[in-house]
Amino acid sequence: MKRILVDMDGVLADVYSCFFDLHEKETGERLSVANIAGKLEAEAFPGQIRWVSTPGFFRSVPVMPGSVEGLKKLNSEYDVVVISMATEFPRSLTDKQLWINDNFPFISWKQLVLCGNKSLIKADIMIDDHPKNLDSFTGETIMFSQPHNIFLRDTKHKRVSSWEEIESLLIKKS
Amino acid sequence: MKRILVDMDGVLADVYSCFFDLHEKETGERLSVANIAGKLEAEAFPGQIRWVSTPGFFRSVPVMPGSVEGLKKLNSEYDVVVISMATEFPRSLTDKQLWINDNFPFISWKQLVLCGNKSLIKADIMIDDHPKNLDSFTGETIMFSQPHNIFLRDTKHKRVSSWEEIESLLIKKS
Repeated sequence: MKRILVDMDGVLADVYSCFFDLHEKETGERLSVANIAGKLEAEAFPGQIRWVSTPGFFRSVPVMPGSVEGLKKLNSEYDVVVISMATEFPRSLTDKQLWINDNFPFISWKQLVLCGNKSLIKADIMIDDHPKNLDSFTGETIMFSQPHNIFLRDTKHKRVSSWEEIESLLIKKS
Repeated sequence: MKRILVDMDGVLADVYSCFFDLHEKETGERLSVANIAGKLEAEAFPGQIRWVSTPGFFRSVPVMPGSVEGLKKLNSEYDVVVISMATEFPRSLTDKQLWINDNFPFISWKQLVLCGNKSLIKADIMIDDHPKNLDSFTGETIMFSQPHNIFLRDTKHKRVSSWEEIESLLIKKS
């Protein structure tokens, strides 16, 4: 059974929807994807580091559309490991796992990795939105479209824009 | 540079000293190593699962004697990754990282893995007190003596009983 690493923020967790709302709440300005396309999160939203460092933030994030059903299907055909570069923000760790338990109860604690370096992990496939994680991975790489990566074209990574596309790529048709 | 996985509980963190104290506080009975030798932690101390699930517990654990200096030396000669099977207890996660930051400030967040399955990690050497982690590791294995493993003799793992012994094994003499 192939092992697949599935990133949390920007793949399972729709963090951008929170960032747009929090930015509007703090500044009165409603940004659009066009305003921030190509910028990393902290560059696009000056409050981002503060928001993600706040206890409770990661419990409040909505799931990415289609991710619950999609991950359930992956979980029946692959050795799924849910992974997050979470140790950059120690106060996010417990929230992140409780969020997984709340929204993806079929993922056991044995399938979760919270770390600071994804290249430590042995796996065959990686789904991630950040090229910095995908570029150094030696297996099959799938880049999930998010505003920060939208202009990247000359990469070796397959691009998907939805969980339906992940299913089309990875789930066997019965 | 060889990568070395260093376990937290029972190698860097002297959890037994807390277990003896908490057991005495709750029951009035002071146990000795002889009383619990060969028993896993939860079997030796009926309160153990409750204690380690309590927020704050892992911030209060003393460091293993010699571990700060020892890990500092390893960190200058190896690619050190500090690892803990922490996702079994989600409310321990933030405490565990803050404890590392408090006591081993030379370990960066990029060197930390909190997970539910250590066999996911690529490494050359593993230091751990639990045979369940060491047995499936394909590299060099070093078993740190703790009361639960004290009677295990027929293993392929090198046994050490202190951080001084780890240094003797792994640090080049200058």
